[in-house]
Amino acid sequence: MRSSESAVVRSVVRWTGTAYEERPDALAPEEPLEIRLAGRPLTVTMRTPGHDDDLVAGLLYAQELLRATGDLDDIARDPARPNRIDVRYATRVDAEERWRRYSYASSSCGVCGVESLDALALNTPPVTAALRVRAGALYGLDARLRASQQSFGATGGIHAAALFAPDGELLVAREDVGRHNAVDKVIGHALRHGLVPLEQYLLMVSGRIAYEIVQKALVARLPMIVAVSAPTSLAVRVADERGITLVGFLRGERMNVYSHPERVIA
Amino acid sequence: MRSSESAVVRSVVRWTGTAYEERPDALAPEEPLEIRLAGRPLTVTMRTPGHDDDLVAGLLYAQELLRATGDLDDIARDPARPNRIDVRYATRVDAEERWRRYSYASSSCGVCGVESLDALALNTPPVTAALRVRAGALYGLDARLRASQQSFGATGGIHAAALFAPDGELLVAREDVGRHNAVDKVIGHALRHGLVPLEQYLLMVSGRIAYEIVQKALVARLPMIVAVSAPTSLAVRVADERGITLVGFLRGERMNVYSHPERVIA
Repeated sequence: MRSSESAVVRSVVRWTGTAYEERPDALAPEEPLEIRLAGRPLTVTMRTPGHDDDLVAGLLYAQELLRATGDLDDIARDPARPNRIDVRYATRVDAEERWRRYSYASSSCGVCGVESLDALALNTPPVTAALRVRAGALYGLDARLRASQQSFGATGGIHAAALFAPDGELLVAREDVGRHNAVDKVIGHALRHGLVPLEQYLLMVSGRIAYEIVQKALVARLPMIVAVSAPTSLAVRVADERGITLVGFLRGERMNVYSHPERVIA
Repeated sequence: MRSSESAVVRSVVRWTGTAYEERPDALAPEEPLEIRLAGRPLTVTMRTPGHDDDLVAGLLYAQELLRATGDLDDIARDPARPNRIDVRYATRVDAEERWRRYSYASSSCGVCGVESLDALALNTPPVTAALRVRAGALYGLDARLRASQQSFGATGGIHAAALFAPDGELLVAREDVGRHNAVDKVIGHALRHGLVPLEQYLLMVSGRIAYEIVQKALVARLPMIVAVSAPTSLAVRVADERGITLVGFLRGERMNVYSHPERVIA
């Protein structure tokens, strides 16, 4: 395989009817990233290489293991091991213990009762930002997200996420084979640039919206999530309860607003 | 919200240009499932309710915590708590310890070096099944998978997976908001019906193929994975190394074969 930042090229057999030929094809890059805390392995996530520092910062932030970049002393990488990152906290935080507690909490917080949405939302208070966005400013964001994607055109197999200002200005866009990673990368970028809480921005994603995307937006205090495709029932319930405007099926000059429609104006 | 097996109906605001109206829309159901082992919380996964027993069996099997359904004494559910399942092993297996060891192993097995694909493939030997499938038997499976989906047409937001025999006979198809869950459900179904190893079947998925789908297929000894969309670079590398034929972009009478093309014949 040949490899570049945005695609891995490989020979494939392309069939059309009963005919076939060998030809090169571009694949979305996926590799494991091992995250260590002060030298000890914490977790492995599959991701598209690139912007790993933002990914790690965004992931730790989403899991509430990080409040600000000042909490971190260092995000270090050995050049000989590009798929391993070592995070050191500046403050004496036992992040490993907190990570395990988080994992355990999400396994045992009683989220499985009908009454348990509070637990799912990690006790994070609702977003109350007074942000308003004109429908006309939302239309076309799907095309602009797509235009920002370097890898999608070549591979057809990669997700994207972006942060936009309400006037449509693009703050940052990132691609990843993992939908959640793309969101972690843009929020991690904002965190490392001192821009969180993100109460004056909206999050755009290329695909669908399930619960976990809403949870990440909630922690970052994003008042609006816009998606090209469908939200799940739980994504809508949590967004509704937690003050987040959830827009789906944004395509051209059409969209559905699933929760807190007051933030979208004509 | 109103709810059914395949969709949750909710009122949304539909915008077209500067006009908007409130109308009902169908959402793909997503709810948390808490999995307990002998009464102790093990993990929580978000999933589309339905076929939870298959999901749990398939998930434990994929993580090599289960070799055959005989290993299980019981998959129990309290009717008052439909989102909690309690698994008991028949044999004295410390599955909780093994789960944590698995989680730890996948965090620390050194998968992040270029040389580490063996570790990623969990030391599972390659699939050597002599299965051959005619291209003509593959064409149209995408339409048949779609036709099997009850929820997609209503919600536009749900994945599907299916097992087919090489002559095109459908064994089982399942939908889920989680791509991996749909795969766990069909493999769990096969496991509970005594059909694993699945060396005489192929796995079909509605979306893309990343590493984790290949890993699940490998454990179930599936010689072929067919997808409607793109595979990632790591999915192709692992499939190539582990003897799995990986077909992508199957649409009508076209497809790409990314690895082990010898199993597809004219």
